[in-house]
Amino acid sequence: MKFSQLAQRLKATKSSLSCRPDHDPEIGGPADLRDAPPNTISYVEGPKFAKYIAETGAIALILPEAAALQQAAADRGLAWLSVPYPRLAFAQAIALFYQPFRPEPGIHPTAVVHPSVQVGREVSIGAYAVIQPDVVLGDQVCIHPQVVVYPGAQIGDRAILHAHCVIHERAVVGTDCVIHSGAVVGSEGFGFVPTREGWVKMEQSGITVLETGVEVGCNTTIDRPAVGETRIKAHTKIDNLVQIGHGCEVGQGCAFASQVGLAGGVTVGDRTILAGQVGIANQVTIGSGTTATARAGIIQDVASGQVVSGHPTVPHRQWLRQSALQQRLPEMYQTLKQLQQEIEALQNQLNS
Amino acid sequence: MKFSQLAQRLKATKSSLSCRPDHDPEIGGPADLRDAPPNTISYVEGPKFAKYIAETGAIALILPEAAALQQAAADRGLAWLSVPYPRLAFAQAIALFYQPFRPEPGIHPTAVVHPSVQVGREVSIGAYAVIQPDVVLGDQVCIHPQVVVYPGAQIGDRAILHAHCVIHERAVVGTDCVIHSGAVVGSEGFGFVPTREGWVKMEQSGITVLETGVEVGCNTTIDRPAVGETRIKAHTKIDNLVQIGHGCEVGQGCAFASQVGLAGGVTVGDRTILAGQVGIANQVTIGSGTTATARAGIIQDVASGQVVSGHPTVPHRQWLRQSALQQRLPEMYQTLKQLQQEIEALQNQLNS
Amino acid sequence: MKFSQLAQRLKATKSSLSCRPDHDPEIGGPADLRDAPPNTISYVEGPKFAKYIAETGAIALILPEAAALQQAAADRGLAWLSVPYPRLAFAQAIALFYQPFRPEPGIHPTAVVHPSVQVGREVSIGAYAVIQPDVVLGDQVCIHPQVVVYPGAQIGDRAILHAHCVIHERAVVGTDCVIHSGAVVGSEGFGFVPTREGWVKMEQSGITVLETGVEVGCNTTIDRPAVGETRIKAHTKIDNLVQIGHGCEVGQGCAFASQVGLAGGVTVGDRTILAGQVGIANQVTIGSGTTATARAGIIQDVASGQVVSGHPTVPHRQWLRQSALQQRLPEMYQTLKQLQQEIEALQNQLNS
Repeated sequence: MKFSQLAQRLKATKSSLSCRPDHDPEIGGPADLRDAPPNTISYVEGPKFAKYIAETGAIALILPEAAALQQAAADRGLAWLSVPYPRLAFAQAIALFYQPFRPEPGIHPTAVVHPSVQVGREVSIGAYAVIQPDVVLGDQVCIHPQVVVYPGAQIGDRAILHAHCVIHERAVVGTDCVIHSGAVVGSEGFGFVPTREGWVKMEQSGITVLETGVEVGCNTTIDRPAVGETRIKAHTKIDNLVQIGHGCEVGQGCAFASQVGLAGGVTVGDRTILAGQVGIANQVTIGSGTTATARAGIIQDVASGQVVSGHPTVPHRQWLRQSALQQRLPEMYQTLKQLQQEIEALQNQLNS
Repeated sequence: MKFSQLAQRLKATKSSLSCRPDHDPEIGGPADLRDAPPNTISYVEGPKFAKYIAETGAIALILPEAAALQQAAADRGLAWLSVPYPRLAFAQAIALFYQPFRPEPGIHPTAVVHPSVQVGREVSIGAYAVIQPDVVLGDQVCIHPQVVVYPGAQIGDRAILHAHCVIHERAVVGTDCVIHSGAVVGSEGFGFVPTREGWVKMEQSGITVLETGVEVGCNTTIDRPAVGETRIKAHTKIDNLVQIGHGCEVGQGCAFASQVGLAGGVTVGDRTILAGQVGIANQVTIGSGTTATARAGIIQDVASGQVVSGHPTVPHRQWLRQSALQQRLPEMYQTLKQLQQEIEALQNQLNS
Repeated sequence: MKFSQLAQRLKATKSSLSCRPDHDPEIGGPADLRDAPPNTISYVEGPKFAKYIAETGAIALILPEAAALQQAAADRGLAWLSVPYPRLAFAQAIALFYQPFRPEPGIHPTAVVHPSVQVGREVSIGAYAVIQPDVVLGDQVCIHPQVVVYPGAQIGDRAILHAHCVIHERAVVGTDCVIHSGAVVGSEGFGFVPTREGWVKMEQSGITVLETGVEVGCNTTIDRPAVGETRIKAHTKIDNLVQIGHGCEVGQGCAFASQVGLAGGVTVGDRTILAGQVGIANQVTIGSGTTATARAGIIQDVASGQVVSGHPTVPHRQWLRQSALQQRLPEMYQTLKQLQQEIEALQNQLNS
């Protein structure tokens, strides 16, 4: 694809691109700025990455609206276009070159689909998938090989279930959801009642509901509760190896990074971002628009719009100060000892 | 089911229930107190949840033996019964309404069961399950679709293996165990010997043994050791995404929450409770009846009956004090600086 | 096997073993020192374990070159041999007795292998494995039951893929790699661009490459990036439930313990050791030969050859001091309060 065509597809206007008629290189594909083969297009998110313009092997760049970066690209003879959100435009550029693998519609002859299953139009079911009684599959659902769907689950239109994921009984997977390999949705919550005779199992009669556009990462687990629902609201994205306990309610448009863990009954507001390995204790409520930095241990409710860190969590700025001082504890301890001695000396001096 | 019948099934006596003959509502099922549809029964665990009695949509409640709560329920015209352990009674109530999904006995025609496998009575083996040579399956074992059992494993009576779990060679899964989806039992321990030429693999010739009544959560992994056993004793319950390293010995009746990790050779006493994301270092020994709170990092032995927190762990009460003071470090630092100045002033004053 | 034969196979010389002609016991197998059945051989890694020589049930021991330990073994009438690296010799001894389970070469009739797949010599493909178009399988590759390989992946000679692992599109698995049960290699990175309209997916057009001799633990996930590669270099060993984010580059000969998490774009140098539950933030670079102790939270670059601990990380020795003082915070706080009072008393005394 010619650079000019690509710019057009990304809706860059003439005033925001290098547009000499004699410099319209052929673009072979997208690449990482620091590691770009020739004939590729890359992107610069902001001034922080400006230094890589001088070194990149890319022949074209997507830039933010910053004259200095445009000049740097021009100086190297690179083609460039500039947009308000370079990362978004780069995502669009990737989509112009890369067609993700999707199996053709059709049911593989080895798939075991119970006669009671309702199958929508243009559904793809891969080899050895097992779809159990009373499951409902929407239109254009794509089920990769060896997926297991337990009885009574509902899979919405265009949902993609990758190899080896398991959807448990009565779970609801919304339209346009993506369930990655090895994820388990709607499994039994960890419900045991302590008694003098030991743990007594509380049957988990509830369900797990994923609303539209939810993504669930590889080997992530989302349990169902004893009664009621575990619910992940629309467009929330969950990375790999995350645990969502029974009865949690997660808002819309959240993003949970890998290895996050939510205990039972946690409520998380919309647009909350949890960085890697964050943990949230039983029954805690997090307001909307909140961010927890990596490894935060949230054991009490958090209001909306906060940025929290540490374990137990405090406002992020406070955590930065705390952490810095934690590293100075040996020095503080020394100072304390010294002050003790100086005071003693003063006391002796005064009382002598 | 009528409320009076339900109360009878839960063994509530007449003196501990609301029993007006004109108020015996039909109960449709169990529900969460805060989210109960009409015609449901819920429960109140203690005074902490008393406020929800005024709001709940449930028509009946299981209460503790507390007159105030009984009065609050009566004031709203709810049917109620009272028992020493409401949560246990609620578990029993769920079991009266909810029948968990269990496949019928029988071997699916697509299951690959090696001729040398010993199959007990009333066994269920799902589609595409693969049972390899010399495996022993007890009576009423339930194997869901696409389970893989490696050669020589033994599965005890009534054990349930959910879809996509893997039981590795020679592992022993006791009677009444439940292995949830995606769990891996008896896989090779992480055994590599460092040498000048790099890592040399130590073959893992040992086995993993789960005693009776053990539950293993979704995508949890329990490795086998180089020699000897990894052993999980009777009735221990393990949540999702937990790692149990090679050669660990876990006592009876423990409960490990999600994302707990035990390194190699850890010994854990009976009835130990590990909250979410707890980690235990190599070769550490934990006494029985110990509790580690969420995210505890245990790097040294812990005596029996302790409650520990933090990383490295300290007694829980001490951790609470430490954590509170950690948040006051900036203030402590300021005070320290100020005292330094005041002492200097005193010294100057005295020596002038 | 006679002890003398075993010693010969382990290349112990006459001068480094107990060699009375009348004491050459038959060795039945290897065992753990503290838990050894009769007629077994075990090993003592160093003086720390010397006390177990007096108690072990083993009939023979592999010892380090330490006269005291040899004497202790001789005193109990045990056969012994001594070598520079007992743990390595013990690994070799296990390999003399234990033959790990390997399926026979051959393609199970139920395996679904696309006609376009290139299959090497002596390949084993288990029941219900699904090998999709354009996959390349090297010689002696061993694929256990129910493995799924997405289109275009390449599996090197002698690689072992355990039950239920998934290799995603275009991933490259090197020669002699071992992928354990439930691991997912080459899945989509967690790439979403925040916009005012919500998360926009960035297609993940890159690939994951595992070089020769890499091991990937059970249920571990290694994502592919939007562009370019996620690469794990030769002979790196990764334990269970580890997350490697999109675009990471991990050096040669590293070892990552269980539940480690690397966010996106992390670079790790050769021979780096990450203990359990370590987390590394986005784009961080770690030098070679570095060790991070359990639960370290690495949020900034780390130079080569460091040992780091804590969150945020500091040199390990500093962390030990910090942690000790953290436990003394209550005492420090008391001292501070007391000094304040004493200074006030001095001030009053001086100004009165």
